Amino acid sequence: MKYSNLLVPTLRDAPSDAEVISHKLMLRAGMIRKLAAGIYTYLPLGLLTIRKVETIIREEMNAAGAQELLLPIVMPRELWEESGRWPVYGKELLRFKDRHERDFCFGPTHEEAVTDLVRNEIHSYRQLPLALYQIQTKFRDEVRPRFGLMRGREFIMKDCYSFDRDEKAATETYWRMFEAYKKIFKRCGLEFRPVEAGTGEIGGTLSHEFHVLAGSGESEIFASDDPDIAYTDEKVPADKICPKTKQPLKSFRGIEVGQVFYLGTKYSEAFKATYSDAEGKPQHLVMGCYGIGVGRTAAAAIEQNHDANGIVWPLGISPYSVQVIPIAVDDENVRNISFDIYEKLQKQGVDVLIDDRSESPGVKFKDADLIGIPLRVK
Amino acid sequence: MKYSNLLVPTLRDAPSDAEVISHKLMLRAGMIRKLAAGIYTYLPLGLLTIRKVETIIREEMNAAGAQELLLPIVMPRELWEESGRWPVYGKELLRFKDRHERDFCFGPTHEEAVTDLVRNEIHSYRQLPLALYQIQTKFRDEVRPRFGLMRGREFIMKDCYSFDRDEKAATETYWRMFEAYKKIFKRCGLEFRPVEAGTGEIGGTLSHEFHVLAGSGESEIFASDDPDIAYTDEKVPADKICPKTKQPLKSFRGIEVGQVFYLGTKYSEAFKATYSDAEGKPQHLVMGCYGIGVGRTAAAAIEQNHDANGIVWPLGISPYSVQVIPIAVDDENVRNISFDIYEKLQKQGVDVLIDDRSESPGVKFKDADLIGIPLRVK
Repeated sequence: MKYSNLLVPTLRDAPSDAEVISHKLMLRAGMIRKLAAGIYTYLPLGLLTIRKVETIIREEMNAAGAQELLLPIVMPRELWEESGRWPVYGKELLRFKDRHERDFCFGPTHEEAVTDLVRNEIHSYRQLPLALYQIQTKFRDEVRPRFGLMRGREFIMKDCYSFDRDEKAATETYWRMFEAYKKIFKRCGLEFRPVEAGTGEIGGTLSHEFHVLAGSGESEIFASDDPDIAYTDEKVPADKICPKTKQPLKSFRGIEVGQVFYLGTKYSEAFKATYSDAEGKPQHLVMGCYGIGVGRTAAAAIEQNHDANGIVWPLGISPYSVQVIPIAVDDENVRNISFDIYEKLQKQGVDVLIDDRSESPGVKFKDADLIGIPLRVK
Repeated sequence: MKYSNLLVPTLRDAPSDAEVISHKLMLRAGMIRKLAAGIYTYLPLGLLTIRKVETIIREEMNAAGAQELLLPIVMPRELWEESGRWPVYGKELLRFKDRHERDFCFGPTHEEAVTDLVRNEIHSYRQLPLALYQIQTKFRDEVRPRFGLMRGREFIMKDCYSFDRDEKAATETYWRMFEAYKKIFKRCGLEFRPVEAGTGEIGGTLSHEFHVLAGSGESEIFASDDPDIAYTDEKVPADKICPKTKQPLKSFRGIEVGQVFYLGTKYSEAFKATYSDAEGKPQHLVMGCYGIGVGRTAAAAIEQNHDANGIVWPLGISPYSVQVIPIAVDDENVRNISFDIYEKLQKQGVDVLIDDRSESPGVKFKDADLIGIPLRVK
């Protein structure tokens, strides 16, 4: 892509309401713009990073045996009455009436919709295990949205729901997803730690959060030096605990970017979602759910990877992998050599940005430092 | 993909509320399921076709010089007051209040949001031309949603907005998009015709609709036998009119899947969206907008391409390109040969589905006829 054809409105200073570094840098690097409190437009450069995170998630979810679908954003009240969450979910659930005065909500999570689908389509143990995921725009009407994509109201999330025959199979699925999450955050190039967590409004009995480590992190977490070891207790199966877990846990600051939940039969009981076992007896489906905040992952990556001049993207989620910066683009020789490199890289399938603007080297380097593409050809 | 790992709940009969053939076949082929009136879940097979249509659109929009971004779904009332559409847009605009009792709407179209963005970021003629597009879930609160994805309330749409210096440049952009649309529907494998159209609630002075031809089409249109010729009058530039346009127009039945609009300065005047020309004088941006209903295109493809047994996908938008159907999957020899073909095709990058179920040939062929993947290996 030619820089001159790309809308990248970089800013010298961030607006005063941007408090954290990722919010400031995403605004300054021309990745996002605010439309309303907690509601952002993803500009081309921001969307490219979002898509890279999504692609990594999609590949690892597929590899873990999950299938992609797309549930509706708008859901009827009746579904949320059935789970019991309509009266108890707070004002974060955005509720409204359609033109016929029927109650609906804008989905912040989709246990209801997916359990309703599965109770209608799954009847036999032969159809199990089943794991369904989607990557979707969701809405949570935060009382005080802030920190840009970190605590927005409208946000992009991957949510996955698993359905198994029994506790044993569901626990295996839980740990397979746990491993998939580790692969995802590794491929994103992030330092992270899984830690045990509560289950909040989602419910269930076992849960881990995945935290990206950053000095600016919102939470203090206790974890091993080794990211492959979950902070763990007796609920973790033996093969997940290796001798190294005996090492002392350390304190880190973390930003939560994903969470996995063992749900059990909370939703399948509420929705009477059953299957027939090998003896033909009805059994409740045993569920898990698994979320990743896509925009939040991009923001956390910046909290972890930046310097005084701007973002320093991990290669896996950089909007472009390589940036070619011809210093004197008006010099025919420089221009030819630069475009030659650019075109050769493109032919090899490398996603490359060339700064073809007639700007001074100072302006170009300042913008390049700000947008933070990790590989540069000058 | 193995059929046994894919949620494809095929049905012998369609629910009684499905009136048109695409709605019936999408339900029967396990592509979609209804959650509420006009609100559907895209099951894995349905989503695969949606993604194929999206990929074709994305490639042709990029080739036409447009950049992808993502605008918010939820927009504040103030923006729609500024364009003047808040009081006049009908009940199709889903309006609601957030937790602080502020008015918002769920976007059915995004002229407001994009013009607001552009007035803040574009200042000089040097930044023009600019074309921005997104592929997004939108909502239109239809009084009587029906026909499945054909007239849903929640729907996936590609919408593109162009910004030019003057009428001449904007008209050139309009016709470049017109040509891009022809390429898109050709690559989707569809018989279609562009026809002149009114501009409705969007506004503007010149517009064409793109209709997929089908005996069941909702509208009667008049067009040339040659899809490369727009039904045309004196507003069309000379180089778009060739002698063949003098041939008599014929009547077809069509399903509208896309529309292009020359907007002029309607929104840039309302939003005071100006740029400085070469003399430093402020000028209003001259706009166009360009929509394609993604789900509607998939549904229209089925209206045009089906037989008594099910869907007959055009290759370009089939959920999978090839289906391998081993008749006796329990016979080791048949199984080995089938999986060998399957794996070889996969290695060559072909998206292939293998029906590895222990079902009778009758069941497999019936399902294959229903889901309609065009290339089969039996």
